[in-house]
Amino acid sequence: MLAVHQLYGRQSHAIDSGRAADWAATFTSDGEFRSPSYPEPSTGTAELTAFAERFHAACVESGEALHHVISTVDVAATGPDALTSTAYLQIVGTPRGESSRLLRITTIVDELVRTPGGWRIRRRVVLRDG
Amino acid sequence: MLAVHQLYGRQSHAIDSGRAADWAATFTSDGEFRSPSYPEPSTGTAELTAFAERFHAACVESGEALHHVISTVDVAATGPDALTSTAYLQIVGTPRGESSRLLRITTIVDELVRTPGGWRIRRRVVLRDG
Amino acid sequence: MLAVHQLYGRQSHAIDSGRAADWAATFTSDGEFRSPSYPEPSTGTAELTAFAERFHAACVESGEALHHVISTVDVAATGPDALTSTAYLQIVGTPRGESSRLLRITTIVDELVRTPGGWRIRRRVVLRDG
Repeated sequence: MLAVHQLYGRQSHAIDSGRAADWAATFTSDGEFRSPSYPEPSTGTAELTAFAERFHAACVESGEALHHVISTVDVAATGPDALTSTAYLQIVGTPRGESSRLLRITTIVDELVRTPGGWRIRRRVVLRDG
Repeated sequence: MLAVHQLYGRQSHAIDSGRAADWAATFTSDGEFRSPSYPEPSTGTAELTAFAERFHAACVESGEALHHVISTVDVAATGPDALTSTAYLQIVGTPRGESSRLLRITTIVDELVRTPGGWRIRRRVVLRDG
Repeated sequence: MLAVHQLYGRQSHAIDSGRAADWAATFTSDGEFRSPSYPEPSTGTAELTAFAERFHAACVESGEALHHVISTVDVAATGPDALTSTAYLQIVGTPRGESSRLLRITTIVDELVRTPGGWRIRRRVVLRDG
């Protein structure tokens, strides 16, 4: 289950650093990402990579660095090669030359599967409260 | 010690989702919870469950979703079946339709014991600075 | 790799509690700490201890408790006895009698080595965005 913490760490640093392909590689090749912050889900490596590229390009354009802060991870086995995981994701923004501020907190609910390359996210649903 | 991270994840998602019995079940049946945010300690499964029910009912009534964000966990063995754990707990609030904001940061100091059902909290003391 | 999470937990609670020698002991005896928040790096146990003492004395003087919140840890082996680790570090401040607030978010990039006493930080570089 430590592998899930590790996957999340790698994933956040990838998207925040603009390494879009590395972010997409934390999903399966048919992986799905659904978030109320975006109008459409992204499905499959090509769409996921394009999503992460757009995300980072928007940060660069706006001049606000964003950090995906992951915490409070709860993992449960749903089969020998399947896990579900629930965690909190805080988006912290730092406009250039200004103070950091919490933009939003969400709950991520992931279905993970074991692959030859390690655990990967088959489906992520992002939930917002409030 | 990963079991403690897991217990904390499960615990936070339980109280934030209004699953009061699940939250109380992360304590031993004689478990104790003391926090300067509340006038009285809660002791034993019935009181702990009632505490979590009141907590969630107050969130629903106020229209502000609360998230218990756990991080920075430091676990030390104090015996073959006993641990102490210190962690940071941030309470993040999201009033309906508004931005999220950090309400407070506290330090939790837990005594944990191994039970047939896994590690459980025998005593939690919440500390506030500032 | 769980050992790195544990090291970070112990380290944050040490500096936030004013236990300067315990903080310095999470580095090797020739360990190095570089941060853009401070004009000079600190190198070796004596300088690291003095750094942590000054940090805590400044908190006491200002009346603002600071918490080093660690999250989103990504660890990779670079050799049998060497790791690199990247994580987010949020500094949360609580002025006496006031609300808590996020002061800044940084990325820490650590080189760790295995020692007889466990994993220790040989070099930490703190990065700031924005």
